[in-house]
Amino acid sequence: MSVAAARRKREKEARREAILRAADEVIARTGARHLTMDEVARAAELSKGTLYLYFAGKDALFAAVAERNISEKLPALRAAVESAEDGLGEVLALHDAWHVELSRTPHVFRFMIEWFLEPRIDDRSEAFQRYRARVRETIGLLVRALERGQRDGSIRADIDITHHAMHIWSSTLGVMLMHRNAESVSKRISLPVELGRLPDLHRDTLRRTLAPASASPGSSSSPAEGVAS
Amino acid sequence: MSVAAARRKREKEARREAILRAADEVIARTGARHLTMDEVARAAELSKGTLYLYFAGKDALFAAVAERNISEKLPALRAAVESAEDGLGEVLALHDAWHVELSRTPHVFRFMIEWFLEPRIDDRSEAFQRYRARVRETIGLLVRALERGQRDGSIRADIDITHHAMHIWSSTLGVMLMHRNAESVSKRISLPVELGRLPDLHRDTLRRTLAPASASPGSSSSPAEGVAS
Repeated sequence: MSVAAARRKREKEARREAILRAADEVIARTGARHLTMDEVARAAELSKGTLYLYFAGKDALFAAVAERNISEKLPALRAAVESAEDGLGEVLALHDAWHVELSRTPHVFRFMIEWFLEPRIDDRSEAFQRYRARVRETIGLLVRALERGQRDGSIRADIDITHHAMHIWSSTLGVMLMHRNAESVSKRISLPVELGRLPDLHRDTLRRTLAPASASPGSSSSPAEGVAS
Repeated sequence: MSVAAARRKREKEARREAILRAADEVIARTGARHLTMDEVARAAELSKGTLYLYFAGKDALFAAVAERNISEKLPALRAAVESAEDGLGEVLALHDAWHVELSRTPHVFRFMIEWFLEPRIDDRSEAFQRYRARVRETIGLLVRALERGQRDGSIRADIDITHHAMHIWSSTLGVMLMHRNAESVSKRISLPVELGRLPDLHRDTLRRTLAPASASPGSSSSPAEGVAS
């Protein structure tokens, strides 16, 4: 690549990044459902025509925002896995790290759910392919943790890894959804509930579900309710 | 009440119900995020002014739609509880009935999540109070099932009932969210996963988490993966 071509490539990447930061700012302010390409162009101080040179539409832009967001969280998830002592420990460390990462950027989590609920999403953009690769990598961490746990005996031998990975992902999503939207929950539910306890309860549930029946339910350390009766 | 007053009351209730049916139809067609009061008025064949006599705004209308929706599901939930043999059986029956009910009206489930994510909801309308009472009744079924299970020994004595009720509700929500949005999941996740298996996996997880440690993990009947290794 010539010096000029390398510079143009750098400039293009910097502008793409600036657009994603602007989109993130608009999402934080108005929510994904009210976002328009006009508004993103304004926030990025670009013409709408220039914006469309980078992203063919909202779907491609959202996919790029989502990919950037997962990419930012991946280092923490990888580090969590590396510090664990066994497979079950990896699963629990991923749970904890995921919880911390979502708490840092609640508006992005809300956006991810809103985008997930869009009935018609164009998944053909390059941005979507990159996003999908990141999702695969994230779930891959969970799948490998479960595999390691079956090898080292910390996780039941009879579980179906792929389906349990999806189940863990899904149930954790629901728990975080409640936990991160405390105001919305409290308007609906008149119960004396501390939503802050939900992630620990969920961690304890994962441990009880995944550990072999022979293991004492209180054997792994848990910040939740302690030993069963 | 005079005959005329009784007739006016009946007519008012009939029109309110017609508006809710119209709103439901608009939500099914466009999703809650794109719904406007104009569109609901058009679908109900009313002037916008008349619509506002019944609902002060979108929040009140959404609360009424949500209340109607929960009210429709409550008989099935009550029936599920009545047929169960013990407290743990009640929890699992509620899970199964909830799953069936959500599957009958997926667009309403999507609307409930979208509405849940609205950052600013006016909870002062009469419709919202009625909706909140229905939510309380629904969670009350779960709370009483857990209480019964602790009395009859089918559920661990050491669990905190209120927090476990919220945890069960949250994790089930996440699982149903994935299960009812299979198309959206499959665009993102390139895994050979049968999402239809998620509710059974979740049911098995509830059983393992709630049953006392002394109970054999395979002792309750389960359509899921069977006995642990």
